[in-house]
Amino acid sequence: MSRPRSVERLIESFGRLPGIGPKTSERLTYFLLRSEKRVAAELVKAIEDARNSTKVCSQCFNLDEVEPCRVCADETRDRSVVLVVEDPRDVAAFEESGFRGLYHVLQGRVSSLEGIGLDDLTLTALEQRIRDEPPEEIVLATNPDLEGEGTAQLIVERLAETGARLTRIARGIPAGATITQVSKSILSDAVEGRRPLS
Amino acid sequence: MSRPRSVERLIESFGRLPGIGPKTSERLTYFLLRSEKRVAAELVKAIEDARNSTKVCSQCFNLDEVEPCRVCADETRDRSVVLVVEDPRDVAAFEESGFRGLYHVLQGRVSSLEGIGLDDLTLTALEQRIRDEPPEEIVLATNPDLEGEGTAQLIVERLAETGARLTRIARGIPAGATITQVSKSILSDAVEGRRPLS
Repeated sequence: MSRPRSVERLIESFGRLPGIGPKTSERLTYFLLRSEKRVAAELVKAIEDARNSTKVCSQCFNLDEVEPCRVCADETRDRSVVLVVEDPRDVAAFEESGFRGLYHVLQGRVSSLEGIGLDDLTLTALEQRIRDEPPEEIVLATNPDLEGEGTAQLIVERLAETGARLTRIARGIPAGATITQVSKSILSDAVEGRRPLS
Repeated sequence: MSRPRSVERLIESFGRLPGIGPKTSERLTYFLLRSEKRVAAELVKAIEDARNSTKVCSQCFNLDEVEPCRVCADETRDRSVVLVVEDPRDVAAFEESGFRGLYHVLQGRVSSLEGIGLDDLTLTALEQRIRDEPPEEIVLATNPDLEGEGTAQLIVERLAETGARLTRIARGIPAGATITQVSKSILSDAVEGRRPLS
């Protein structure tokens, strides 16, 4: 006897999610089948609610339940600084860190491996924003990895002619870390990015 | 701005699944929100279909879309051997290995840590099966780990008075492994379980 078809299909469905391998997918499937009906029903409802209630902000491309998003609509935010991030998850992270400016979500990063170019991101919309309401500063906050740095560099080139003041988030030793335990490249970033104390 | 509430709720829902930590849960959520509507819709449908179509077999407690399950209903199976397993996933695994007898799914194993005792398993139903249609052999195929071995031992004690012939699946060197690379306990199992060649 092979597995019931509906079970096979659920294993396949979970397996299409990122980072879910065949064993995890099987475990999730049998967990949902074994638990009370309520558990699966709640998950289904949460997926449907999140899909139906969220929309992409037409100004910054963040995800929210209102349009424009609560950040763009908030008149108390500092509209002179726009922080450019790859993903709505990055917005949530910077919000928790206390940033009070505006955002622009690229919806990805340039990746030659995945065939994603600058024009697949929301850069045209960012250029439009700069023309409509020029911010004093645009902080490039893509991830400090190979693709994130590459994306930041390409954006610098693309936005050069807008005359916007571009900055890049700092790389260095993460707060709370021990110098002897971080990598060489973190230490060299920290020395290179040193700042005057007086 | 905190995350939209429907997004928070989906992250929580995924986080209730076994082995899904907060970061994975966040990744799955944003993946579903970012992908085409079809992806989330397919997952929802697969969960609902699997929940609605599968039932627990009243004879062996396996999961199937028919009742009794296809194994129990199959007249060509060898009804003289019943393989006792912890979980429906184990049935799928033994089926792929070519086993052609019947099964009995315990729906778990004894675990003092999780407060699961012998009476929380489907043992009473197994005793009833032995009385109704005594098999020639009952193979205990719980996992060869601490809890699986403990469960097998408790079942041996419980079924002693039924007079059923009980066996345990073999422990030893897994086919394809290299002797120098398997653990000491696997090698001692292999020596202890040695079999005559003539």
